Amino acid sequence: MPRLLKKRTQKIGLPPGTLIHIGDETMKDVKITVIDYKDDQFQEKEVLSLDECIPFRDKDAVTWIDIEGIHQPDVLEKLGHCYGLHPLVLEDIMATDQRPKMEDFGDYLFIVLKMIDYSENNGGPEIEQVSLILGRTFVISFQEGKEGDVFDPVRERIRTGQGRIRKMGPDYLAYSLIDSIVDNYYSVLERLGEEIELIEDQLVTDPTPAPLRVIHRLKRDMIFLRKSVWPLREVISGLERGESSLITDSTVIYLRDIYDHTIQVIDTIETFRDMLSGMLDIYLSSSSNRLNSVMKVLTVIATIFMPLSFIVGLYGMNFKFMPELEWRWGYPVVLIVMAVIAAWMLILFKRKKWL
Amino acid sequence: MPRLLKKRTQKIGLPPGTLIHIGDETMKDVKITVIDYKDDQFQEKEVLSLDECIPFRDKDAVTWIDIEGIHQPDVLEKLGHCYGLHPLVLEDIMATDQRPKMEDFGDYLFIVLKMIDYSENNGGPEIEQVSLILGRTFVISFQEGKEGDVFDPVRERIRTGQGRIRKMGPDYLAYSLIDSIVDNYYSVLERLGEEIELIEDQLVTDPTPAPLRVIHRLKRDMIFLRKSVWPLREVISGLERGESSLITDSTVIYLRDIYDHTIQVIDTIETFRDMLSGMLDIYLSSSSNRLNSVMKVLTVIATIFMPLSFIVGLYGMNFKFMPELEWRWGYPVVLIVMAVIAAWMLILFKRKKWL
Amino acid sequence: MPRLLKKRTQKIGLPPGTLIHIGDETMKDVKITVIDYKDDQFQEKEVLSLDECIPFRDKDAVTWIDIEGIHQPDVLEKLGHCYGLHPLVLEDIMATDQRPKMEDFGDYLFIVLKMIDYSENNGGPEIEQVSLILGRTFVISFQEGKEGDVFDPVRERIRTGQGRIRKMGPDYLAYSLIDSIVDNYYSVLERLGEEIELIEDQLVTDPTPAPLRVIHRLKRDMIFLRKSVWPLREVISGLERGESSLITDSTVIYLRDIYDHTIQVIDTIETFRDMLSGMLDIYLSSSSNRLNSVMKVLTVIATIFMPLSFIVGLYGMNFKFMPELEWRWGYPVVLIVMAVIAAWMLILFKRKKWL
Amino acid sequence: MPRLLKKRTQKIGLPPGTLIHIGDETMKDVKITVIDYKDDQFQEKEVLSLDECIPFRDKDAVTWIDIEGIHQPDVLEKLGHCYGLHPLVLEDIMATDQRPKMEDFGDYLFIVLKMIDYSENNGGPEIEQVSLILGRTFVISFQEGKEGDVFDPVRERIRTGQGRIRKMGPDYLAYSLIDSIVDNYYSVLERLGEEIELIEDQLVTDPTPAPLRVIHRLKRDMIFLRKSVWPLREVISGLERGESSLITDSTVIYLRDIYDHTIQVIDTIETFRDMLSGMLDIYLSSSSNRLNSVMKVLTVIATIFMPLSFIVGLYGMNFKFMPELEWRWGYPVVLIVMAVIAAWMLILFKRKKWL
Amino acid sequence: MPRLLKKRTQKIGLPPGTLIHIGDETMKDVKITVIDYKDDQFQEKEVLSLDECIPFRDKDAVTWIDIEGIHQPDVLEKLGHCYGLHPLVLEDIMATDQRPKMEDFGDYLFIVLKMIDYSENNGGPEIEQVSLILGRTFVISFQEGKEGDVFDPVRERIRTGQGRIRKMGPDYLAYSLIDSIVDNYYSVLERLGEEIELIEDQLVTDPTPAPLRVIHRLKRDMIFLRKSVWPLREVISGLERGESSLITDSTVIYLRDIYDHTIQVIDTIETFRDMLSGMLDIYLSSSSNRLNSVMKVLTVIATIFMPLSFIVGLYGMNFKFMPELEWRWGYPVVLIVMAVIAAWMLILFKRKKWL
Repeated sequence: MPRLLKKRTQKIGLPPGTLIHIGDETMKDVKITVIDYKDDQFQEKEVLSLDECIPFRDKDAVTWIDIEGIHQPDVLEKLGHCYGLHPLVLEDIMATDQRPKMEDFGDYLFIVLKMIDYSENNGGPEIEQVSLILGRTFVISFQEGKEGDVFDPVRERIRTGQGRIRKMGPDYLAYSLIDSIVDNYYSVLERLGEEIELIEDQLVTDPTPAPLRVIHRLKRDMIFLRKSVWPLREVISGLERGESSLITDSTVIYLRDIYDHTIQVIDTIETFRDMLSGMLDIYLSSSSNRLNSVMKVLTVIATIFMPLSFIVGLYGMNFKFMPELEWRWGYPVVLIVMAVIAAWMLILFKRKKWL
Repeated sequence: MPRLLKKRTQKIGLPPGTLIHIGDETMKDVKITVIDYKDDQFQEKEVLSLDECIPFRDKDAVTWIDIEGIHQPDVLEKLGHCYGLHPLVLEDIMATDQRPKMEDFGDYLFIVLKMIDYSENNGGPEIEQVSLILGRTFVISFQEGKEGDVFDPVRERIRTGQGRIRKMGPDYLAYSLIDSIVDNYYSVLERLGEEIELIEDQLVTDPTPAPLRVIHRLKRDMIFLRKSVWPLREVISGLERGESSLITDSTVIYLRDIYDHTIQVIDTIETFRDMLSGMLDIYLSSSSNRLNSVMKVLTVIATIFMPLSFIVGLYGMNFKFMPELEWRWGYPVVLIVMAVIAAWMLILFKRKKWL
Repeated sequence: MPRLLKKRTQKIGLPPGTLIHIGDETMKDVKITVIDYKDDQFQEKEVLSLDECIPFRDKDAVTWIDIEGIHQPDVLEKLGHCYGLHPLVLEDIMATDQRPKMEDFGDYLFIVLKMIDYSENNGGPEIEQVSLILGRTFVISFQEGKEGDVFDPVRERIRTGQGRIRKMGPDYLAYSLIDSIVDNYYSVLERLGEEIELIEDQLVTDPTPAPLRVIHRLKRDMIFLRKSVWPLREVISGLERGESSLITDSTVIYLRDIYDHTIQVIDTIETFRDMLSGMLDIYLSSSSNRLNSVMKVLTVIATIFMPLSFIVGLYGMNFKFMPELEWRWGYPVVLIVMAVIAAWMLILFKRKKWL
Repeated sequence: MPRLLKKRTQKIGLPPGTLIHIGDETMKDVKITVIDYKDDQFQEKEVLSLDECIPFRDKDAVTWIDIEGIHQPDVLEKLGHCYGLHPLVLEDIMATDQRPKMEDFGDYLFIVLKMIDYSENNGGPEIEQVSLILGRTFVISFQEGKEGDVFDPVRERIRTGQGRIRKMGPDYLAYSLIDSIVDNYYSVLERLGEEIELIEDQLVTDPTPAPLRVIHRLKRDMIFLRKSVWPLREVISGLERGESSLITDSTVIYLRDIYDHTIQVIDTIETFRDMLSGMLDIYLSSSSNRLNSVMKVLTVIATIFMPLSFIVGLYGMNFKFMPELEWRWGYPVVLIVMAVIAAWMLILFKRKKWL
Repeated sequence: MPRLLKKRTQKIGLPPGTLIHIGDETMKDVKITVIDYKDDQFQEKEVLSLDECIPFRDKDAVTWIDIEGIHQPDVLEKLGHCYGLHPLVLEDIMATDQRPKMEDFGDYLFIVLKMIDYSENNGGPEIEQVSLILGRTFVISFQEGKEGDVFDPVRERIRTGQGRIRKMGPDYLAYSLIDSIVDNYYSVLERLGEEIELIEDQLVTDPTPAPLRVIHRLKRDMIFLRKSVWPLREVISGLERGESSLITDSTVIYLRDIYDHTIQVIDTIETFRDMLSGMLDIYLSSSSNRLNSVMKVLTVIATIFMPLSFIVGLYGMNFKFMPELEWRWGYPVVLIVMAVIAAWMLILFKRKKWL
């Protein structure tokens, strides 16, 4: 289960702009990949030091610098110096507990997003923060460095020149990256949706504590998903409104498409939440139903056998003078009386629909 | 039951505008019907290939192209080329998990709606996506291709020239189609309303698990209906505001009428939701009541017979020296004592209103 | 109980503006009453055909045409023709499932309201739709034709010339009619308020299923009232904003008064809803309390008598060699032991506050 | 407990502006007090008839006319005539079921407020309506006439000339009166807060029906308080916005202070509501817990003694041929067996944590 | 636990601007510290009387006067006189039940904040009110005087000249103080988050009353935190909007950073609230589950042993003529019959999944 909160206490008291990594340290080295492309040019290489990126800075082509691993302040500092990023931006990149947001710094846009992965072994969605810097000729993406990302299809499209990506600017690249992230939400939701449908079937047939635990986990997941996706809406509507000159008109229509997807994802999350709440109500009701039927069995048994036990106890008394005991037909008569009582009780319960 | 989510995973990583069908493939061939009319002209034919539609494109008359089946990308591509539709529009038409929406592309409006049918065998409302393209001289409607639609009355009115439909433009045709869809919501709501009233009566008289399951299903249906109808409000208010030159003033007043209907439908859905929630509360309360009364029966039985059983057990002991056993009136006295105890208990319970 | 939904299915597929009555047919003939007044003139008559109304149309005096019964399309059509009403307006008048609304057609205002009556035999509030047409010199009111209305005091004031009504225009007449309807809401709320207070007292003293059913009915009533009154707020604030030239300034201050009343009615409905929800919670809690106390009785009885029964059973065994049975004081000792056990149990329960 | 609704039915059908008292008649005579002050002048007297007030009307000094008792229409009518009040204002003053509101009539402001008192004998907050008329040189306050008011400190400050009140105009007087009323809300809330804290402690230690009833009463009180205070916010923000020329700039800063207080009061009411809801949940949960522990006791007892009783019953059978009965060590062996069974059960329950 | 409400009753009736301390008196003497700095100058001293502060007033350097202890009216009065503060500001500083707020008095800004500390011995977050006066060359901070504050890192940075604080104006100092306070919220939330996670684990494994009590306490804490943090959002967005000339542009970007943090804190509080509500639901459900399983044990035991006890009781009767008793194989046959019954019951329960 994801932790509720990331440790931030270490930052208390430090001046603003101090670069401190908040989050899990997931890999030793920072991996930097540079992809540089333009119409018919294409170049991709993994660089060891940021100095190698600088030649790309002022080139005409679109440069995408992908940085995996954000725990080394010096790497970020050098980058910030080279591309003129504000210290608070660098601070936010390193703090992985940001809300999705978009900030316009004139020369560049700073975008924070959440990449969600449904990892099997984790038993729930795992959230990784992705920050994007969209400049006039470049896009810089920062990942926490967890294994795998969702950008491979974009890389492939750049490499092969498929679609229009090679013909368009860095804003379209940024759009493509955001689109990959949002698209991936669907696959997470599909997985959760399947789980919900599974639980729903179990619920009616068998209200054991097991589904309860799954419902609780799913509700928790929904809370986290919601927190990651809700602010996204504002981010993308902010981009789409096209107030920044970094976003060209031809890209805006694509952003509108992501906006629709975001709304759809939010809608689905709300639907899931509604359904999970409903399932809890049903669970409670059907558990109380079951208690009812258990208690009816108990009551029927007790109501039938308690009077009978009393009767047999009665004739087990050792009084000297109990005329019935001496009668020839005493025993059979008592047996018949008891049978009548039991039958009468059964009919009564039948009528009350307890049986 | 409708699935919670349609599979969208196959699309992940593809460039925007790639035409991939999302939804159930429900028929083999795409069925294309063209209706062309103007005041006193009228022509209707089923075409085999889209090439046959093209002559209608630039004619003065109103052309309605109805396409049933949206799973063949080539059909849509050809159409998009012919009528100048944006690739993202075609992509949205093929993806049947869209929210209802309206987009203004200047030359044409793109409208997505949900047609709802209450199918008997399905045990719940079935939702089919309908997309409309409203151009200057034409309306193109896309259906998923499930059996039956709600447009027959419109077709009939065009054929017979009943009402004003033949005298008005394509915007009025689009209005008529939307109106048919919204009108049909009423019949679905009527069906659900009847079910709710039925359950309501059962609830008070007999809280078995059966109504619980029906309530759960109805709540689920409401969630889906809501999702389909809520965004409609915005869609129609967007049309009605009359910002597009494609909507004439004389049609706006009719759109206002649909707007009222949409609000009414939303109102009704909310009312149903409120009632279903209320019913669940009542169910829980009345089930807990019933448990109470079951437990009272058990307690009364136990409270009466346990002391009596103890007494008869007492005189069933085999001690050598138990004076009572030798008494002449021992047995009758014990019987009387027990009768008194039982009577006293009954009076007590009567007073506590447990009987 | 009022039905959840009125049948509207019959209308599906008909062109807009088709006059079809939606609702219960409550009387055979349409009753038309005309009241014509001006300062010192006054005329009132029941007319048989609408032709008789036409002379009043162009007169200077204020004309109030009250039409009870809206199920005859021809009556409405003739009226619509005479007063220049839009077909959609006539359609809305005949459909009694409208939401309260106000539409400005320039020459006239179209207002839909709900008149609520608390009928004894119905066991709940009964809702009747009232439509008003406010023109330059006339007011036309349409009622469903259920027995009785709330307009008698207005009629009386016109007849006697009491208050300022004879001195003012048709807008003041419309205000007076709306005011009568809103005033009547108070009497309905008073009745419901009394029921709620009655139930509230019962609740604490006696949680039987009876109050549960009443609470359910009252919640249902609230849902219906709410649906009728909430939109009224918008209607009246629309009138009061005085955008129509049909509303004179001197009437606006009176409309503000109704607006206050409407807010008050809405406030009261919300208060009632809150209270009913609270009562259900209390009901559930106090029912669970009662179960607790029932179970305590059962447990106390069982805990005391089960060990005792075991002891007496023990000495009821028929083993040959049971030394206790032969002892002189065996019986009394056992009796004392059992008394001690019982006393000890009672003290224990006393301490646990179960007794 | 305060009644849910005040009787308003008597007003139905009367023309607007008819003066009818709605509320409890609490005193026989109307008590009118006039305070007239200006810098160094001060005059206070109780007048018998309104005619005596008239000389103060046009004086330069600030005149405060305090009227206790609003059930005599003639008094209000005379006043209305003298100070030029609108009939609807007089009607609203007499109807004590108004919502707090502020209306600007140009020459004067009409303000309705609720004075709340926590009376011991009533067992809950008691609400009294206070209406204020703020004119150019005068303030008229109307009270329902219940015993006591919260204005004594203001009177004292005027008499002694303490603070700035004698130096400022009628708007500051009106502010002081409103401030007294809002200040008093704190004392009511403090009382309720103490009750809530008391109940909170009881809740955890002892879930009897008693706290349930108190919680219900407190929730009810909150609903009423809320209804009285929520609209106040709008009233004061309306005054503070300073659109009326009757409010001087130097007073606005004081109104902002009351505005803060009102928000604080609303905040506190919402906090209390949240806490009461939370307490009900806790109550339900802890009551269900208690049931659990009761049932465990019962089950433990039954599970231990039922098998033992069966065994002793077994050897109480009278079969002729039961070899065990003849054995020398039969009785002790059975005793040991039973002890083992009981011990085993106890260990089992211990492990299940039922003991 | 913090008290729900601070005593405010003592203030009722006093003229506005009267300085009365509302809150706990936590220290005897007021402690005043003055820090005066400018680029390369730095001076810090504890002063005994406010007269010593006055020389700093008109100096060019930034002066920070920190006042711990706000219960002495004369200290505040002198200060108010010296720095020209409005009496209502002084009143608000002394009343520690303020909501966070920001008021612009032209010459200075008045800011009220809540400093939260998670004290071990208190068992919950403790709230201390901090008021800030931001003037053109000075910042005055007022603390309630509880032990410890969160400003030490700021002091340290000023002393050492670390970061940019010495180079910037009083607005940056105010920002730093607010930032310290908001940063500290994270540490409180971390503590609460850990508690919630702990409880969450307990919940599923062991639904005893203990977690219930903790959940209740945590919900209570959330209500208080929420009350303290929600209004902060408005305060900081008010500062950030930069309408006051006291806030320089270079500081605005830092305020935006705090704004993000505030949103994050609010988000986290809402998440915690959602989780606590969810946990209560789970608690209730799992408690009802447990009851179910307890009852099943009881019912199984009773259903098996009651018939058996009846049978052994039957043959314990003392009738003279009971042929079975004489049979040679009577006893073994009865034993076998009982074993069969018991086995049959067990199989039945196994199938019903009660075992």
